[in-house]
Amino acid sequence: MIEQLVTISVIGGASATPEFLKLAEEVGREIARRGAALVCGGLEGVMEAACKGAAEAGGLTIGILPGTRREDCNQYVKLPIVTSIGYARNVIVAKSGQAVIAIDGSYGTLSEIAYALQAGIPVIGLKTWSMSINGKTENEIIIADNAADAVQKAMDAIAMLPS
Amino acid sequence: MIEQLVTISVIGGASATPEFLKLAEEVGREIARRGAALVCGGLEGVMEAACKGAAEAGGLTIGILPGTRREDCNQYVKLPIVTSIGYARNVIVAKSGQAVIAIDGSYGTLSEIAYALQAGIPVIGLKTWSMSINGKTENEIIIADNAADAVQKAMDAIAMLPS
Amino acid sequence: MIEQLVTISVIGGASATPEFLKLAEEVGREIARRGAALVCGGLEGVMEAACKGAAEAGGLTIGILPGTRREDCNQYVKLPIVTSIGYARNVIVAKSGQAVIAIDGSYGTLSEIAYALQAGIPVIGLKTWSMSINGKTENEIIIADNAADAVQKAMDAIAMLPS
Amino acid sequence: MIEQLVTISVIGGASATPEFLKLAEEVGREIARRGAALVCGGLEGVMEAACKGAAEAGGLTIGILPGTRREDCNQYVKLPIVTSIGYARNVIVAKSGQAVIAIDGSYGTLSEIAYALQAGIPVIGLKTWSMSINGKTENEIIIADNAADAVQKAMDAIAMLPS
Repeated sequence: MIEQLVTISVIGGASATPEFLKLAEEVGREIARRGAALVCGGLEGVMEAACKGAAEAGGLTIGILPGTRREDCNQYVKLPIVTSIGYARNVIVAKSGQAVIAIDGSYGTLSEIAYALQAGIPVIGLKTWSMSINGKTENEIIIADNAADAVQKAMDAIAMLPS
Repeated sequence: MIEQLVTISVIGGASATPEFLKLAEEVGREIARRGAALVCGGLEGVMEAACKGAAEAGGLTIGILPGTRREDCNQYVKLPIVTSIGYARNVIVAKSGQAVIAIDGSYGTLSEIAYALQAGIPVIGLKTWSMSINGKTENEIIIADNAADAVQKAMDAIAMLPS
Repeated sequence: MIEQLVTISVIGGASATPEFLKLAEEVGREIARRGAALVCGGLEGVMEAACKGAAEAGGLTIGILPGTRREDCNQYVKLPIVTSIGYARNVIVAKSGQAVIAIDGSYGTLSEIAYALQAGIPVIGLKTWSMSINGKTENEIIIADNAADAVQKAMDAIAMLPS
Repeated sequence: MIEQLVTISVIGGASATPEFLKLAEEVGREIARRGAALVCGGLEGVMEAACKGAAEAGGLTIGILPGTRREDCNQYVKLPIVTSIGYARNVIVAKSGQAVIAIDGSYGTLSEIAYALQAGIPVIGLKTWSMSINGKTENEIIIADNAADAVQKAMDAIAMLPS
């Protein structure tokens, strides 16, 4: 059996403040330095910044595109996956990472967090959504302090997955 | 042009306490009484209870099934839609209602709430998820007090939609 | 258990000659007369003509839409299902019918025939695709001569399905 | 802009004769030699043989899995994409290649051919499906004689795509 690539998904909004874009770029760079492949939704904002960080550090960047055209990915995606299934592709972004790092985010990010937690995939949160239901706070998201911490926690969580 | 059916989606967990099942059944009954069709995920728990309420009141019940077999829907689904796309079908449950009523819920419910809010579909919450991001509380979910109130608020929201 | 609706999917191209549109309308009318619900892709051409026939005969017409807007269905769809998953929705059109009637068709129709045959769903062909592989002709499509014959064969096939 | 990987999808049945498996392995090897990445459905049969050929020649192999577990891919997949959307993932296999090579095949393969032709993606056929509609033979599939010829024709078709 050949060795599979380690994959980490980075999720976050298509528009974001410079602070979050910088954070995403650092996360991407750190993922590539660890030798993992970066999976994302392939579009702008947090997705593009994370791809930029990873690609410039020599990493493999995978964009799970909602549309029908490979040209619609951001310029740092090395491997576009053309799903054509719209935002239903969020479930693929969530499940194709062995861990998920959520940065800030929109409702799309929230759907991806929900899918990852439902599937038992570790979610590391960097200033992202928090949720509660009927007074009970969801506490499965692993909180990280900064980019390096987030990627370290993702790698640690992957190391503990049943193989 | 023939008249389209008014549709309301009811979302919630596949397992739920008797209290929430009773609430779901009341919601389903009230939807049918208003002449609307009920859309749901087609399985057990909140979905089944809502279908029971609607079907027994003579309403049309639509189950958007994740699997490949129409037999896998609950016994109160009159029209099974066989998607075969797994939990990616959550986006279809969310978008096929003109309004969504969320009762209690699991991570699947959370993904559906996210998809509905992203699409601008009114979400009425009955003891369901609340979310915040970076200290800012999401406040687009319309809170309802009871089943009749929830359905009334759904009908009101639908009446205000651009046609 | 409440009684489920009998469903027949009608598939065919979004553009078609008057001859095929007339055929589709007759098929739709005949489906409604038999008390079955008509499932289709919800758009123009063969889909619209079949919905017209069914709706004018008082039948329930279901449009499994590729896009994100319920307004994008043809004017004879009574129940739009908003999938938002693009042409991946073809698999839902194929699997949500207990039998499928294919009229003429495009590549989308071909994908739906393939999905239905793969799932063991009876396919009735009215002047539609025929296929062969490595010299072996596919012969699972049940050939029909006219609209009434097609619907009769669909109803017969449904009656023979394991319950 | 970083350089995107060239991608070729290989499609074919999950079970196949030794003759077709050998052909698929040769196709995979030839794709890797040309420096292209191989996209497939990630499972057994033609998919596995093609991945074997590509992986052993040092190529990147991508498996677009129908299920929910990355472990379910064949042993030569280096990058599993976990779609969880069942056979609806066929549309992603078809659209994520810049060209598609079809070897032998089942109904799933037929759906992928249909999706690729619909999207205007070049399809190269190696002893695969042929289709006709109402007496008119579909002639958009580019026929290849052997593995090297198929990959050459795929590379030629990709070189002619509008950029």
